[in-house]
Amino acid sequence: MTEFDSVMELTPVAGAGERRRASLGEGWVIGAGINGGVLMALGARAMAGAVRAAGGGGDTLAFSAYFLSASAPGPADLDVEVLRVGRSFSTAQVAITQPTADGGSAERVRMLSTVADLAAVSGPLHRQQAPPAMPEPDACLPASAGPREILDPIKILHRLDLRLDPATAGFGLGVPTGRGELRAWIRFADGREPDLGSLPFFLDALPPVSFDLGAMGWAPTIEFSGHLRAHPAPGWLRTRITTSNVTGGLLEEDCVIWDATDRVVAQSRQLAGVRMPPAP
Amino acid sequence: MTEFDSVMELTPVAGAGERRRASLGEGWVIGAGINGGVLMALGARAMAGAVRAAGGGGDTLAFSAYFLSASAPGPADLDVEVLRVGRSFSTAQVAITQPTADGGSAERVRMLSTVADLAAVSGPLHRQQAPPAMPEPDACLPASAGPREILDPIKILHRLDLRLDPATAGFGLGVPTGRGELRAWIRFADGREPDLGSLPFFLDALPPVSFDLGAMGWAPTIEFSGHLRAHPAPGWLRTRITTSNVTGGLLEEDCVIWDATDRVVAQSRQLAGVRMPPAP
Repeated sequence: MTEFDSVMELTPVAGAGERRRASLGEGWVIGAGINGGVLMALGARAMAGAVRAAGGGGDTLAFSAYFLSASAPGPADLDVEVLRVGRSFSTAQVAITQPTADGGSAERVRMLSTVADLAAVSGPLHRQQAPPAMPEPDACLPASAGPREILDPIKILHRLDLRLDPATAGFGLGVPTGRGELRAWIRFADGREPDLGSLPFFLDALPPVSFDLGAMGWAPTIEFSGHLRAHPAPGWLRTRITTSNVTGGLLEEDCVIWDATDRVVAQSRQLAGVRMPPAP
Repeated sequence: MTEFDSVMELTPVAGAGERRRASLGEGWVIGAGINGGVLMALGARAMAGAVRAAGGGGDTLAFSAYFLSASAPGPADLDVEVLRVGRSFSTAQVAITQPTADGGSAERVRMLSTVADLAAVSGPLHRQQAPPAMPEPDACLPASAGPREILDPIKILHRLDLRLDPATAGFGLGVPTGRGELRAWIRFADGREPDLGSLPFFLDALPPVSFDLGAMGWAPTIEFSGHLRAHPAPGWLRTRITTSNVTGGLLEEDCVIWDATDRVVAQSRQLAGVRMPPAP
């Protein structure tokens, strides 16, 4: 089993109804907490599975995630409520909680999702954003080549083959472009091919776009919504994140993912906190 | 009391805990249902109010809405769950239901929201999208000048002073531009000034962007997320909606709102259903 499929495993919890349990390994942390994209992919998977079991379509079309507290390696419980099963579109909610030291539990993320049969609405293609021009993966900068003191706490980087476009990688050398854009090729390090279920993870896998504005601190996600637009083809994904509206405390980060056939397969927007350095 | 403040009134329901009731007047329908923007503004207001009562900030920063069933004029009940009250950011959820003919109730919308003190994070302004160049309101096309058979079922248009940029208003004459963009000036018809609480309504007040692509049918919202970025100044708002990724069944619609001082005060993205006409 691949690394990603392993962390996506959902096991029924005896005597706890529809509750499912996941095991969040140390390998998916960034700093002290579990990467938000892993949690979103897990939540989306649990909701799509519950809708499918209730007779609806089984593909995630849209999801929104609101982060409530910092997660940690260990078990996580997912409680899904199917709100509506429709002929075309179904809706579900999930609460992801973790047990706490005092014997209680703490909610980490609350999510909503629309689930449907994506193939019924993903074609024909009328228009889409063109993929960015960027050098081939071998001419880009592997994130694994960065300084160890930065990379070591970001264990999810070992799960990824992430190649930054050199034109947007200046932040790693202390010379961000200031444009507010990062571009990269991305795939799983162990060769697992991308699929619809992994797109919520890839939408949140790049460093924060605020790095390209010289704000090198943590950029906590306030709200994250993603749309999955097509099943990705095997091979490399290209991803671009941008921001256009930035204050001293907030910015939005938009992400688009193209597959190896140049098709837009996912897009997202998040509102994130930022501590912008004072203007020079 | 202004029309908008009247529909935003939330009354405690005796014996029903924290439940609040709103009265959705006929004047806010579009076709047979209540306008989604009114429901989102109500839900955001209820969540912000509950967080404020629980000791958190009182401004909506972000909200996501998932529509479950078609609403109708009449009473609506709002049940808020405050998920977290934080020093900086708080999170809440609301279910908006309406009583049904059989004595039960049907959920119309499920929403999540991040609530905070917006003034603490909305400045200083580092960068923002520039407002679109468009003629002054008096040189734009008032929506009220459209054909009666189109306007009559859209009763919310009587609550609005909506002036379409002539460059993007071709759809009204059967000659959409095909670019996927609508621009307009907008304000309340009765002179009420815009405020933070009305921005969720204005984010969803334009005709669907699919009209500019020649798809004149209903465009049901699948998921809608909005970010409120600053308190709007009094006066006209300018709003622009665009789409970049369109299939036969789905498109995203992005909206940005600028206030009279040219400040970006809100942005949103929704995933909507569309029935695109076959390519010519």
